[in-house]
Amino acid sequence: MAEPQEFELTHQTLQEVTEAIDDGRFVHVRRQLQDMEPEDIAHLLEASPHKSRDVLWQLTDPEDYGEILDELSEDIKDSIVSKMAPEKLAEATEGMDTDDVAYVLRSLPDDVSREVLDQMDSADRERVETALSYSEDSAGGLMNTDVITIRSDVDVDVVLRYLRMKGELPEATDALYVIDSDSKLIGHLSLTALITSQTDTPIADLIEDADETITVDTSATDVASLFERRNWVSAPVVNQNGQLVGRITIDDVVDVIREDAEHSMMSMAGLDDDEDTFAPVVKSVRRRSIWLGANVLAALAAASVSNMFEGTLAQMASVAVLMTIVPSMGGVAGNQTVALVIRGLALGHIGNTNQRSLLLKEAAIGFLNGLLWACIIGGIVVLWKGSVVLGMIMAVAMLANLLAAGVAGVSIPILLKKMNIDPALAGGMALTTVTDMVGLSAFLGLATLMIKLNMI
Amino acid sequence: MAEPQEFELTHQTLQEVTEAIDDGRFVHVRRQLQDMEPEDIAHLLEASPHKSRDVLWQLTDPEDYGEILDELSEDIKDSIVSKMAPEKLAEATEGMDTDDVAYVLRSLPDDVSREVLDQMDSADRERVETALSYSEDSAGGLMNTDVITIRSDVDVDVVLRYLRMKGELPEATDALYVIDSDSKLIGHLSLTALITSQTDTPIADLIEDADETITVDTSATDVASLFERRNWVSAPVVNQNGQLVGRITIDDVVDVIREDAEHSMMSMAGLDDDEDTFAPVVKSVRRRSIWLGANVLAALAAASVSNMFEGTLAQMASVAVLMTIVPSMGGVAGNQTVALVIRGLALGHIGNTNQRSLLLKEAAIGFLNGLLWACIIGGIVVLWKGSVVLGMIMAVAMLANLLAAGVAGVSIPILLKKMNIDPALAGGMALTTVTDMVGLSAFLGLATLMIKLNMI
Repeated sequence: MAEPQEFELTHQTLQEVTEAIDDGRFVHVRRQLQDMEPEDIAHLLEASPHKSRDVLWQLTDPEDYGEILDELSEDIKDSIVSKMAPEKLAEATEGMDTDDVAYVLRSLPDDVSREVLDQMDSADRERVETALSYSEDSAGGLMNTDVITIRSDVDVDVVLRYLRMKGELPEATDALYVIDSDSKLIGHLSLTALITSQTDTPIADLIEDADETITVDTSATDVASLFERRNWVSAPVVNQNGQLVGRITIDDVVDVIREDAEHSMMSMAGLDDDEDTFAPVVKSVRRRSIWLGANVLAALAAASVSNMFEGTLAQMASVAVLMTIVPSMGGVAGNQTVALVIRGLALGHIGNTNQRSLLLKEAAIGFLNGLLWACIIGGIVVLWKGSVVLGMIMAVAMLANLLAAGVAGVSIPILLKKMNIDPALAGGMALTTVTDMVGLSAFLGLATLMIKLNMI
Repeated sequence: MAEPQEFELTHQTLQEVTEAIDDGRFVHVRRQLQDMEPEDIAHLLEASPHKSRDVLWQLTDPEDYGEILDELSEDIKDSIVSKMAPEKLAEATEGMDTDDVAYVLRSLPDDVSREVLDQMDSADRERVETALSYSEDSAGGLMNTDVITIRSDVDVDVVLRYLRMKGELPEATDALYVIDSDSKLIGHLSLTALITSQTDTPIADLIEDADETITVDTSATDVASLFERRNWVSAPVVNQNGQLVGRITIDDVVDVIREDAEHSMMSMAGLDDDEDTFAPVVKSVRRRSIWLGANVLAALAAASVSNMFEGTLAQMASVAVLMTIVPSMGGVAGNQTVALVIRGLALGHIGNTNQRSLLLKEAAIGFLNGLLWACIIGGIVVLWKGSVVLGMIMAVAMLANLLAAGVAGVSIPILLKKMNIDPALAGGMALTTVTDMVGLSAFLGLATLMIKLNMI
């Protein structure tokens, strides 16, 4: 992968800015920030260590605050907003999309958020209050209310004259929405159709139906999946009565897609989705220690299995030396299956119909890879420790554990999902607990048996 | 998370279709497929077990082949295409975007791909051959050549009349590109500006410059990052001479964003990015066993550390029982850091300027979490095994390993990236090897020392 051009640019700027801050050349930094696009300042803030971030924010033109906040990732946005005075915040919201203002207000204490709302003009306040009434993870929380509506009983020329009078269109407008007298959505008129049709064409002839309708309570993930599948640029949102209430644009959907995809990776490692790369230490310690606490239980569970075989371990130290290999392989193999199943569940590929064939497939893979590595590692043990029986114990335990890993790797995420527990969050650790316990029991159990039978 | 509506729908269809295939009611399935959108058939194929997939494909209307192939994930696309006759494939490509045809041809053996090209009409063939000359992961590989260009010396009315004559615009057109007589890109005219301006406005007055230019060799990841940051719907692509050669649209970029984000998760688990959920067993076994092979080395490295302390293990079985706890905690803590750093590298947040502060931060987190869990697990061991010295050994080893995990968690991915090795692929396993070896050495080493000093 070549070094991205963008990346280089920002890090050169970052270096300059960091040095300038260290030297106290604040006027220089301020001038540099003025030359930058808001989205690049946002990127600079995200790549800055915690301390320079506050200085940078102070040196940024408050006019840009709104647009920068729009672009920041959630964790950083929260920490900046929590330090702003309500009146500054109210000012900043003027440059922001309604959905983003609602996001910011949700993260504030109620009284502060009330204060900010009070500072807004009444039209803005009403829009934001409506957005606040929807869940953050729903179409209502994603949508903006900047919609251009038209009636069906006019012709292309009338619409074009109306638009020329307006003088501008909201960002990412690729269609106008046709509504009836009751604000009910009838369909949409794409800009393409508007532009390529003769001026006397009645709008009624050009209306297209949406294949699917998004209502305010459609989940953000479903909205993203519809956009991705239908290749939409924007889509209308209706309420329960079919009345048009807003519009979702692809740029907000892209954020959802990235967040959903990152969610699995971050959760599987036991991190918060939006954990800021340069978060304050204490905050990170608190968040991550919870996950480590869960792993303590898993590690103690494994140790208590070994504890049951303390006699065997006392009698034969080579068993202790070798006992970590089988659990390690089972954990790795099982986590491959878990990752595959988590992605399949997230993409909606796995359901009741195909669970069984998935289970059989992963069990078969576990069995075959188990056979392969049983032979190889069994052989290595025979050569290393000079004991055929120890090699065979290792081989059998390996086969059993890789088979268990395949079965558990499919079952655990699916079961967790049925129990409404996020499989990305809990799946990997639950799997490792199973493979540790099965692996240790199988290997130490067989070793104990062989010792009792005087075979080793 | 509520069950997505989409998901339900498809799985109901999938169940019906699967049952109908099992019962041999092929006519019924064919009829059902005819009522479905190509993108939904693609989703159905992705959610189908390996065997029904072939039957489904046979029953699908060949007219839809192109559009369905466009939507399929790469692994599944490859396996379907490899079974198609060249002339069928040439037919299917008629419904496909140029970049997707190029993708399909790249995956074929040279002679088959040549044969498919020969079956195309010459204009299509030339377009596809141009696309094939660019790398798959570059702007050239992502772009389409369906671009509408205009000159700057006309007015709005002329352009509108020209577009009405054309009658349709390519998908996701939000701007027309203005070029000079040498095909050099001068700027773009947004449809919004076209629609909202008076008809006698000269185009020259409405031209907007792009903030950034995409050239054919800009990497796909950089293209995605530009689209995401600038909220673009489409963007022009130029060659080294500044001549317009194509256009990238947001729907292709969304695929890149999803693939890049999924890449980290899949690679960290040791899977191919595009591993198909229902891939044939043998294919999966082969792919995954490579990763397991790497882990064998890691597991043997850990075992060889234990082996150095075989005397200690022989003397004291409780040490063997407890020895897995410290490596386990180190692995989990270190992988939290690795995941954070991998995401930071992918987003371009981490560079030379801020590596040191990141390292210090993660070391501090490792130290503090190390202290916390050293006390807790040390305490548990004292109570469980009744030995204060064993508890203290555990505590010191835990602290050392969590500190090492923080340092290694930052350094390993950054070093791998400098060596041009994908950190998502190798980072986790390299980290675990380090934390296993440090954890075992610290715990077993201290235990050996204490035994020698007759402290336990």
